Amino acid sequence: MNASEGEEPTVQDQDQDLAELRHALGPKFVTDRARVVTYENDSSRAVFAGAALGVVLAEAAEDVSAALAWAHANGVPVSVRGAGTGLVGGATAYDRGLIVSLERMNRILEFAPQDRLATVQPGVITADLDDAAHEHGLFFPPDPASVRTCTVGGNIATNAGGLRCVAHGVTSDWVAALTVVLADGRIMRTGARTRKNVVGYDLTRLFIGSEGTLGVIVEAVVRLESLPVGPPVTFWAEFDGLPEAGAAVTEIVGSASRPEVLELMDALTVRTIEEVFPSGIRIPRGALLVGQAVGPDAAAHAEAILAICRRHGASAAAVAANDNLVEARRKSNPALSARGLKIACDVGVPVSRLADMFAGVAEVSRRHGIEVASVAHAGDGNLHCKVAAPDTPSGIAAADALIDDITRLALSFDGTITGEHGIGLVKQHELAWQLDDVALDVQRAIKHTLDPMGILTPGRAI
Amino acid sequence: MNASEGEEPTVQDQDQDLAELRHALGPKFVTDRARVVTYENDSSRAVFAGAALGVVLAEAAEDVSAALAWAHANGVPVSVRGAGTGLVGGATAYDRGLIVSLERMNRILEFAPQDRLATVQPGVITADLDDAAHEHGLFFPPDPASVRTCTVGGNIATNAGGLRCVAHGVTSDWVAALTVVLADGRIMRTGARTRKNVVGYDLTRLFIGSEGTLGVIVEAVVRLESLPVGPPVTFWAEFDGLPEAGAAVTEIVGSASRPEVLELMDALTVRTIEEVFPSGIRIPRGALLVGQAVGPDAAAHAEAILAICRRHGASAAAVAANDNLVEARRKSNPALSARGLKIACDVGVPVSRLADMFAGVAEVSRRHGIEVASVAHAGDGNLHCKVAAPDTPSGIAAADALIDDITRLALSFDGTITGEHGIGLVKQHELAWQLDDVALDVQRAIKHTLDPMGILTPGRAI
Repeated sequence: MNASEGEEPTVQDQDQDLAELRHALGPKFVTDRARVVTYENDSSRAVFAGAALGVVLAEAAEDVSAALAWAHANGVPVSVRGAGTGLVGGATAYDRGLIVSLERMNRILEFAPQDRLATVQPGVITADLDDAAHEHGLFFPPDPASVRTCTVGGNIATNAGGLRCVAHGVTSDWVAALTVVLADGRIMRTGARTRKNVVGYDLTRLFIGSEGTLGVIVEAVVRLESLPVGPPVTFWAEFDGLPEAGAAVTEIVGSASRPEVLELMDALTVRTIEEVFPSGIRIPRGALLVGQAVGPDAAAHAEAILAICRRHGASAAAVAANDNLVEARRKSNPALSARGLKIACDVGVPVSRLADMFAGVAEVSRRHGIEVASVAHAGDGNLHCKVAAPDTPSGIAAADALIDDITRLALSFDGTITGEHGIGLVKQHELAWQLDDVALDVQRAIKHTLDPMGILTPGRAI
Repeated sequence: MNASEGEEPTVQDQDQDLAELRHALGPKFVTDRARVVTYENDSSRAVFAGAALGVVLAEAAEDVSAALAWAHANGVPVSVRGAGTGLVGGATAYDRGLIVSLERMNRILEFAPQDRLATVQPGVITADLDDAAHEHGLFFPPDPASVRTCTVGGNIATNAGGLRCVAHGVTSDWVAALTVVLADGRIMRTGARTRKNVVGYDLTRLFIGSEGTLGVIVEAVVRLESLPVGPPVTFWAEFDGLPEAGAAVTEIVGSASRPEVLELMDALTVRTIEEVFPSGIRIPRGALLVGQAVGPDAAAHAEAILAICRRHGASAAAVAANDNLVEARRKSNPALSARGLKIACDVGVPVSRLADMFAGVAEVSRRHGIEVASVAHAGDGNLHCKVAAPDTPSGIAAADALIDDITRLALSFDGTITGEHGIGLVKQHELAWQLDDVALDVQRAIKHTLDPMGILTPGRAI
């Protein structure tokens, strides 16, 4: 592609190369600063200070391919974004880098209800896919808190979790096949539409959770699940302390009545949600456990779970008349942020260590003298602490130091430094806490093999 | 390591290098031909003609590390084996190659029942793990037909399937973390003990199903599932034709009564099993569907499934008094082989295409004039055709040509060339039928990155 064949370079194209990109993509390549700036940050606290070259508003795999081939040839760093709801700076732009936005590739291409598969473009909003699947008696299980704004492509790129993981696993469990644009612009298909497929290496899983560092997902075949029979039964239990609640969770998850949702909020979280989004929730002394059982035996399962809670000292426990408590749980993040509990952490522990973990977090909070709100996808041991911090460098540094201690605590319980948010920019320094030197080396070798110029989301994820 | 430090090289050590290996491993390195020859073949029809240098009877990760470091330094090809039950030549030895056997690393190291995890060495027999888990109220879902002889390490290396996949997925769904020895002898840990973990690339999944080409698995943390409440309910249905049975399967799998096992055998298979292992099974006109429902509502689910079968024209359908039919199904492979139906194929199709696939296989069989027995893990669309062939080169070539046609047929239905057996040696020529050039290229690049000397199971899997 040569700019001299088409329109003249404009004054904005300070070098010939950018004109080539404009020529290839036409109005799908946007350089107007007022527009570009809206694509430069994600939902993390990573603040972007430079200026990206422009945004590719991709409408097809070929647009992504053209953009990456150009970046590869010119050594230009590329950030990739769906809806920009990421929490660790994975989609933050690069100074003089290119931004590839997938928001326009937002069509559901096909439903195959008998095989419980759907083919989607990456920019489809997750809840839109789930809603559309309902019409076929199916649903898409992954449901991160941002389900109404985040995209399926972003979920796959980060291997997103959510509330229903305790029953249905994470995003990677629901992806059958991908179409990926590699760093040099080549387009590759992975996976198959069959339940079993052992042909070569599992490239599908290699790209899931790779946070934009190995390729750009431009199409996905996702698995769907049959809708459960009957409405969900929402239940709740109040505990005087988090550790007792954690012990109850461990027993519930190991029981024959494993629920679809099992969330735990400490008193500070519940009180803050009720203050910011009042709905009449009662504030527990220690913690509120909220969950949903599904299926034909949902009511019996809910009763069995409530009995476990009472055995572990729940001060009150009952079936709820509606799902308001689950909806309230989904608002914990904006509520806590609104009250200054802004710095998020995302660690995981084996479920058997939840009680120890909660006790440890309380101790860390006391030791640092900083308020911490705990919210957990308790059923899978995934804990989101939110830490109070004034908007000053020293306040944020103090919160970061506290989060480092919580993260080390999780690792001391055989846990993980990130359950579902990913590494991005924000957690780079923690990587070597969890991975051994050989694993770090192998990750970097794979990255170099697939992206030898290092243009794709460089310096993040691994 | 230098042989001059220890014992003198024996006459068998025709070069200094081999003495070094003997020095490092002592009696764990076996070169006696009478013993070595028992490790040179797997259960496939790939016949090994050369002579391996020797077998490393590894007892610890360090033994594997020493063996691979030596092979890496000396450019010696390595085959890796658990129990040698593989069906595609993945564990077949190399002429003047090294064999690493993991049969002595057969201990279950730990059960963590609250987290539903177990830590195992690779040589643990799969059924032994499952049986031991039962004592904790848990089970290990993957159950390939060779479950009583195959090893967990082999299951992971090949991403094995089995009968229960329709309900529980494949082996990769049940592995949380691995310890792997890389080609150069370095030892690496992957994964985590948490349900969610998004730290770097999913190296666990990269090694699962890599068929010994990227590293040797020396330890695994596997996930377990809670045992279902109550005994399984076995059900069966007879059909006059396979396509009708296939249509019934499609509806069953999409229903709210998805069973734990759903197997389909054609009349030839049932008749052959009954002839070789008589147990009084009635021979159907077209096909016999056998399954098991589990859980507190097993009986109701079985009835719902039988109703679907009757709607699709089952000539007879009922609940069975015991699980003899499932046990009979597990004997189909030896029974068919005993009667000359020896050449196995392992394709998969989306469940919605099962009926078309069965009709197509019958047409292929007629066209080639060769008898084909069809057995399917019907619930997940995984079909094992076994093809009659005399033990002559031309007979086997004719069977291979027929299997190629069945494989192309599966691909024409958006299927896969292998659902659970893997590629190994036997299916090398089919790889490019399913994978595009870019995917083939990426697989080879990853292989070269992790095993630059090409010593690990070279020329197979990818």
